[in-house]
Amino acid sequence: MTGTVRSVVDRGIATIEIDNRPVRNALDLGMYRLIARTIDGLSGDGRVRVVVVRGAGEEAFSAGGDISEFRETRAPGAPAISYNAAVATAERALESCPVPVIAQIHGACVGGGCGIALACDLRIADTRLRIGVTAARIGLVYGLESTRRLVDAVGRVRATRMLVTARLLTADEALSAGLVDEIHAPAALEGAVRTIAAEIASLSSTSIRGAKSMLRELAKGVREETPETVEVRNASFSGDDYVEGVQAFLARRAPRFCVERPEGETR
Amino acid sequence: MTGTVRSVVDRGIATIEIDNRPVRNALDLGMYRLIARTIDGLSGDGRVRVVVVRGAGEEAFSAGGDISEFRETRAPGAPAISYNAAVATAERALESCPVPVIAQIHGACVGGGCGIALACDLRIADTRLRIGVTAARIGLVYGLESTRRLVDAVGRVRATRMLVTARLLTADEALSAGLVDEIHAPAALEGAVRTIAAEIASLSSTSIRGAKSMLRELAKGVREETPETVEVRNASFSGDDYVEGVQAFLARRAPRFCVERPEGETR
Amino acid sequence: MTGTVRSVVDRGIATIEIDNRPVRNALDLGMYRLIARTIDGLSGDGRVRVVVVRGAGEEAFSAGGDISEFRETRAPGAPAISYNAAVATAERALESCPVPVIAQIHGACVGGGCGIALACDLRIADTRLRIGVTAARIGLVYGLESTRRLVDAVGRVRATRMLVTARLLTADEALSAGLVDEIHAPAALEGAVRTIAAEIASLSSTSIRGAKSMLRELAKGVREETPETVEVRNASFSGDDYVEGVQAFLARRAPRFCVERPEGETR
Repeated sequence: MTGTVRSVVDRGIATIEIDNRPVRNALDLGMYRLIARTIDGLSGDGRVRVVVVRGAGEEAFSAGGDISEFRETRAPGAPAISYNAAVATAERALESCPVPVIAQIHGACVGGGCGIALACDLRIADTRLRIGVTAARIGLVYGLESTRRLVDAVGRVRATRMLVTARLLTADEALSAGLVDEIHAPAALEGAVRTIAAEIASLSSTSIRGAKSMLRELAKGVREETPETVEVRNASFSGDDYVEGVQAFLARRAPRFCVERPEGETR
Repeated sequence: MTGTVRSVVDRGIATIEIDNRPVRNALDLGMYRLIARTIDGLSGDGRVRVVVVRGAGEEAFSAGGDISEFRETRAPGAPAISYNAAVATAERALESCPVPVIAQIHGACVGGGCGIALACDLRIADTRLRIGVTAARIGLVYGLESTRRLVDAVGRVRATRMLVTARLLTADEALSAGLVDEIHAPAALEGAVRTIAAEIASLSSTSIRGAKSMLRELAKGVREETPETVEVRNASFSGDDYVEGVQAFLARRAPRFCVERPEGETR
Repeated sequence: MTGTVRSVVDRGIATIEIDNRPVRNALDLGMYRLIARTIDGLSGDGRVRVVVVRGAGEEAFSAGGDISEFRETRAPGAPAISYNAAVATAERALESCPVPVIAQIHGACVGGGCGIALACDLRIADTRLRIGVTAARIGLVYGLESTRRLVDAVGRVRATRMLVTARLLTADEALSAGLVDEIHAPAALEGAVRTIAAEIASLSSTSIRGAKSMLRELAKGVREETPETVEVRNASFSGDDYVEGVQAFLARRAPRFCVERPEGETR
């Protein structure tokens, strides 16, 4: 293991950095485990209103799994099974995060790196983007849930096409396919991500956590209200944010949801 | 309650008008209940082949729920629960309507208004469109089924983005996102909607009600034929429309499905 | 029955030709049965890495069901039930094919022909394309699974619009809707399809069959890993392709997955 994963929280915005620069932030087994642990920690932190995931430096988000260690850490049988479980756990942690997660994608975003980006809610990339799933060049099979996230992002037909050709998409192709949401010049990417993250952080945390909760249920295949989803909606009308939101609307002023609170306290 | 909802039926086309002009057709609790009742009435009327939902005037489809009454009709606890149930009932009535429902959208279509538009099958708007879900500015949570309809219209990623930023989309943005199907100059919108409504009304009612039935099952998450869906399909081959459709095809003439019938009689 | 269906296999690429030229490759009952039988045969052939489905000649993929025989083969009651079952069986055979299936679409692709194209994984068309579902002009109802495939290809809203207006789309409209993946000049279509088919055939068959397996589960509504999907993924790490893929990656050379094998042997 040569890579690492670190995180900082600043004014409601958590940033997770995937760092394995010698191999364009390729993910090794230890890094997958660190991603899961980091997200789990942030998920319980009430100060966090939005998470940004990025690669270290500006060359790559992540070039994929670190194939140079595969013959050891991902050997047939028990090692591969254990490795695959770690990938699934990291991706599920991202998908289950109670606040929005934005992938800030510089350059390469391939294979396992693409899997991490797909487990985020939004993907904002720079113009040098090269993104795709190259499993069919390595002889391995992408997991069902990773495949589902790809289908949810680009539709069934484009997902099939990406998987069976293993082609990488350029920034324009990815934007047109819906695989990324915005494209920026490399030097402008960080600023664009900060802007939308700050915008999200300024809005009602109750609403946004609630929206993510509904989207999680939909991802599981729930299609009609359940007692739990009705309760999430109804409960929002008893929150402080609703009082503030209605007051602000009637006073024709912007709402102030983002009050600083002591660490660990959730709204 | 200041607003109202009215409907007329003319040559197979029912038009429902949401009228609360002083507040840009904002929806109050009574109007939600009227929408449900109106749609339920039209759903049982065999003459109706297509429904158009529009706001009164040309300024707005609907600016949202009428927040000025929220502290009373949508207060925390029982009032909010009851109000939310009325919203869900109105939206489900639209979604379950046995014939196609077209939202004719002038100008603003926000929050609860967007929820009504999303429960329609098609959305045709004018160039002044401003559409979005602003729940995160008010502190409340959009329901699971409303969220599902948004995801079904624009895809999971764009839906997430709309919900967590609470941004309004312009006409061009909404068209590109798939949130509306057509954009017209304000003065041309009515005519464009009438044209497609008349086109739908001229086709086989058996086919179109059958298609809506299949789409309803798909919305519930049904993915493979059931005895009921097979029966809907098979039964269409025993209908008058099939006889006429095949005859017309073989005679190389346009089919005549839309024969006037006494009120209440269904084909 | 006047039409026929034939197939050839060449260097891993199977081509199925729908031939009923006098009626622009309209599908009769016998042809539906031949499609199912042909695909079933190819599905068990380990040499086959990709399937191309095309109409004979360059005028039409298929103009639809052969309505001239409907009063006999698709008469109300037992004949229609039996015919509809044959359609469903042919479409399911295509959808369940273990390798990617590409529809090569010259010109008309309507009704039942569109149903066959939708059951393929990819759709590549020429500029003369006219594609749509005209059930509402004949008075019949498209099946649930055919409707699902249309929704999966173009989204719920566009699918609704296509079904309730029965309009045909041009090549540009179909491309923009996501109903076809590529558009080529008529003379260039065959070459474009051969190129992507050869590309798919050169990649890991284990990966591609695995990807199709995941996509099939997703089509059924499975949204989270099952013991079976986890096993498909884990098993790929014990295959020859994985050994070759990792070796090739580390040696910075292209992988060689496509070794000729005796007929019937699968990798």
